Amino acid sequence: MMLKNTDCGKLSKENVGQTVVLNGWVQGWRDFGGVLFIDLRDRSGIVQVVFNPAFSGQALELGNRARNEYVLAVKGKVVERDAETVNPNLATGDVEVQVHEVEIINSAKTPPFPIEDEVEVDESLRLKYRYLDLRRPEMQKTLQLRAKAMRVFRSFLEEQEFLEVETPILTKSTPEGARDYLVPSRVHPGEFFALPQSPQIFKQLLMIGGIERYYQIARCFRDEDLRADRQPEFTQVDIETSFMSQDQLLSTMESLLARLFKETIGVEVQTPFQRLTYHDAIHKYGSDKPDLRFGLEIQDVTDIVRSSDAKVFASIAASGGVVKALNAKGCASWSRKELDDLQPFASRYGGKGIAWITVKDGEWRGPIVKFFKPEEIAALTEKLGVEEGDLLCFSADKLKTAADVMGNLRLKVGRDLGLIDNSVYRFAWVVDFPLLGWDDADQRWVAEHHPFTRPREEDLPLFETDPGAIRAQAYDIVLNGYEVGGGSMRIYRRDIQEKMFQALGFSLEEAKEKFGFFLEAFEYGTPPHGGIAFGFDRLVMLMSGRTNLRETIAFPKTASATDLLSDAPSPVSGNQLEDLHIRLSAKAVAAQANG
Amino acid sequence: MMLKNTDCGKLSKENVGQTVVLNGWVQGWRDFGGVLFIDLRDRSGIVQVVFNPAFSGQALELGNRARNEYVLAVKGKVVERDAETVNPNLATGDVEVQVHEVEIINSAKTPPFPIEDEVEVDESLRLKYRYLDLRRPEMQKTLQLRAKAMRVFRSFLEEQEFLEVETPILTKSTPEGARDYLVPSRVHPGEFFALPQSPQIFKQLLMIGGIERYYQIARCFRDEDLRADRQPEFTQVDIETSFMSQDQLLSTMESLLARLFKETIGVEVQTPFQRLTYHDAIHKYGSDKPDLRFGLEIQDVTDIVRSSDAKVFASIAASGGVVKALNAKGCASWSRKELDDLQPFASRYGGKGIAWITVKDGEWRGPIVKFFKPEEIAALTEKLGVEEGDLLCFSADKLKTAADVMGNLRLKVGRDLGLIDNSVYRFAWVVDFPLLGWDDADQRWVAEHHPFTRPREEDLPLFETDPGAIRAQAYDIVLNGYEVGGGSMRIYRRDIQEKMFQALGFSLEEAKEKFGFFLEAFEYGTPPHGGIAFGFDRLVMLMSGRTNLRETIAFPKTASATDLLSDAPSPVSGNQLEDLHIRLSAKAVAAQANG
Repeated sequence: MMLKNTDCGKLSKENVGQTVVLNGWVQGWRDFGGVLFIDLRDRSGIVQVVFNPAFSGQALELGNRARNEYVLAVKGKVVERDAETVNPNLATGDVEVQVHEVEIINSAKTPPFPIEDEVEVDESLRLKYRYLDLRRPEMQKTLQLRAKAMRVFRSFLEEQEFLEVETPILTKSTPEGARDYLVPSRVHPGEFFALPQSPQIFKQLLMIGGIERYYQIARCFRDEDLRADRQPEFTQVDIETSFMSQDQLLSTMESLLARLFKETIGVEVQTPFQRLTYHDAIHKYGSDKPDLRFGLEIQDVTDIVRSSDAKVFASIAASGGVVKALNAKGCASWSRKELDDLQPFASRYGGKGIAWITVKDGEWRGPIVKFFKPEEIAALTEKLGVEEGDLLCFSADKLKTAADVMGNLRLKVGRDLGLIDNSVYRFAWVVDFPLLGWDDADQRWVAEHHPFTRPREEDLPLFETDPGAIRAQAYDIVLNGYEVGGGSMRIYRRDIQEKMFQALGFSLEEAKEKFGFFLEAFEYGTPPHGGIAFGFDRLVMLMSGRTNLRETIAFPKTASATDLLSDAPSPVSGNQLEDLHIRLSAKAVAAQANG
Repeated sequence: MMLKNTDCGKLSKENVGQTVVLNGWVQGWRDFGGVLFIDLRDRSGIVQVVFNPAFSGQALELGNRARNEYVLAVKGKVVERDAETVNPNLATGDVEVQVHEVEIINSAKTPPFPIEDEVEVDESLRLKYRYLDLRRPEMQKTLQLRAKAMRVFRSFLEEQEFLEVETPILTKSTPEGARDYLVPSRVHPGEFFALPQSPQIFKQLLMIGGIERYYQIARCFRDEDLRADRQPEFTQVDIETSFMSQDQLLSTMESLLARLFKETIGVEVQTPFQRLTYHDAIHKYGSDKPDLRFGLEIQDVTDIVRSSDAKVFASIAASGGVVKALNAKGCASWSRKELDDLQPFASRYGGKGIAWITVKDGEWRGPIVKFFKPEEIAALTEKLGVEEGDLLCFSADKLKTAADVMGNLRLKVGRDLGLIDNSVYRFAWVVDFPLLGWDDADQRWVAEHHPFTRPREEDLPLFETDPGAIRAQAYDIVLNGYEVGGGSMRIYRRDIQEKMFQALGFSLEEAKEKFGFFLEAFEYGTPPHGGIAFGFDRLVMLMSGRTNLRETIAFPKTASATDLLSDAPSPVSGNQLEDLHIRLSAKAVAAQANG
């Protein structure tokens, strides 16, 4: 067999006169009256190879048998194309290869979809034939970008003396692990491993183990009902460090992300990143992952409308709720239908509705205008910067709901008005997340991040007076409306850990039962530490301009956690189950019988 | 808190006069009449810090409270030590730090074993407190070596344009997957994922997908009864390439390994590596993973003893068996006990015994000497290079058993005679493995490697005449008696694949049922491809001079697949099982009840 000595996509005028051997796939072929042109493709690109009886009759004869996706080996001479046949759409379009010898290495059935970028084909077909889908230049580019991104992460982190350590995949199931994938043990009947949702516990143990700076590009698993941007197994860049302050860590991570974007996609992102408190993010953007590529900030008008005649506003304000307003600049021209659609839009996010006012011909119009006194209108005009042509939208509700409704409206309006520049990458940190959240059902405080998240030093007294107001040393990194990472500094002092457990409603003894060996580890000289994890798949998705995580993963699973290529998961034999000391439930048996 | 601005182990005379802040753990402390010396340790090493009322009385007072493994922050001045107090055993022994300020960041309970290299403590205790064990310099060094090895693998492979691609961990269970770990699906009742024993199928699909050169440092899983050098989850460097010959691949891999050893442990290994056929490895060294650091080759004396009066030898030879001999140079002096021990030694490897002859004072002695005719003795003398003082050992059996017995005897004698230089790293390729093996139980041929392994071109006619003699394009890489990797070129031609299935006793239709989508993928233009996988844990073990895989893994499991640190696997709640549509078997329920 003739094995390649160069790559199709690498040929240029510099190679003219050389005899080369190429291996690749037939991208396409054209027969021009006894002269055959084949576009030969390998992972580097495409080059035109020419079969002509003048070069070799035998080669032409063989070449004529080739069809799309056949695998060929050709030997021939690189020549410059005539000026009029130069193909400017092809990187190698200045040259072609005159074939003197050809070998059909393998034939191919007609693929179920064409191997080219703009395929209009159902995604499930692409996933079933993923090995063909991967041949498309777009997929190849994405996988190359993904590998490059890994390389940049690693090289930066290694320069900063982060040590790569692999943590186990077969780990312990925890009581909180409702979304754990489990693995039955053959050796220990009735016992199970769990696949890790993150290496959280291990990375903290590594800090206790004196590693000081750790990283890992780690596979993680979460058995949850999937949304478009979730996968049952996903990759995270996992980082933990000792003896660093939150500021040091965040600024190191900024340098890392700046390097990542520069070296993979050539984008200069601005550092330092904006830092936004959780409070401001919610109040101004209605989201803890705000898209900061445009303004259109949400305003709080509770105080202005508190004493208005608008009963709904007044009663919400009186009961501790908020009234949030968004000035949709220039949207007074919305149709009646668009305005009516605000009602179901609000419902989608749990809101009761969106009140609106249009400002046209200097006049305020809308169902609620009549309830406002002139001084309220004046105050709203100032607060919202009202101008001719504006549409004012209001949501009155509990903070969480009002923020959610207005935050999503802000995104919709931003998109509709074309305020979002897709070429911009706008990072920001969201900091000062609340440490504790109130669980209405259980009537107790729960950890918003996890029970080992460090509170801000100056908020410690609030454990006694107002636990809900304690701010955590926890942070998310957001990019264009996506959360692409998050982490926290961890508690390392026993007295604070005890306060935390107390706030969560259990004693140190109960905590020991719950967290076992992990808590014990903290007693042997734990350094101050903290960390972060980046959602690698999502970063690659944003860097490659995709909107679907599956496009960034070689062999992804569908929203129902199925691999369409191999048809996993699938039934297994009774013997296998017996070896693992498990049986199917009645429901599973029935499903199998029907299935 | 005072955060470090340098590392303990990095201080030297160059830093004299500087004020530094260090963070670290108390390795030890000595109180010399009001002056306190603390050895402060971080991951970079140890430095002595000195508390003296002359520098700061307050610091001394706080320092006196420190005990082993306390976490401290100290601020102080680097000074040169007096000539008589220089500590040559410490990298930083020329200097010490005069402490002006100290902060006890955290206290520590007394660790269950000392944090130092030569700990004589039960391994299970070290595994239970792995976070403390990891603080020992030896473990830190091994993890650093491991990370460095990954780095070298990656940088070499990326230079050679291998693309890193992640393949799934939640994969399909195959009928052959008796040793698969299974993962019940919540979404699909009664169905299971399997954890991959290797990414074999995916890497071949990537070749079909046009990736051409792939690598991954991949986690793999095998649920088998464990030996000392196996772990239920392990790491392999997984490599696959298209359009390369076996020779090209092996020689690229030699460069890779040479670079690895040079850059991680500074060892120059000789390339090209010796290439040994499987046949020669078995016949000369009694093993397919021979230790080539010493000679002591095994000889085949079947033809010499075939017609001797030694009935056992003659009958074995007549029935197609072999007589293998090893000349244990200079071992004629073995005691009667040592000679008697040869019997149980042979049994351990399935042999019936080892016949022996001592050569002392020019005379051959031993139970079997009388059966040999003078010309046989002459022939043996020549074949085995017999000299005064030698011990001749014989094993007569089926080839496999005789080779195994003699191969292990060779290792024992090599070790006993001190023929093995532990500083030497001797790589070799074992090539030309048999493609097929005869399964006595099932009375059929089975694939020795896997059913997609490519046979040698020139052996193709043997499919019709002597399938057992077909040599595969399969290879192992061995190092000092360990297999550290292996792989094969794969079948890509349909006609050969059909011959292979035929030899294995199933039709193409049955094969399609068995291998499903994988076989279908081959029909769309499969390039010639092949690959290799290196046992990464084992390589690190050998590079770090260890004999136990667990020493090379941050959080390993025991021989019974248990994580002593987290106590995984463990029972889970009934709710969790219900969500996953499984129940425990009666045996598992009983095991759980018994605790």
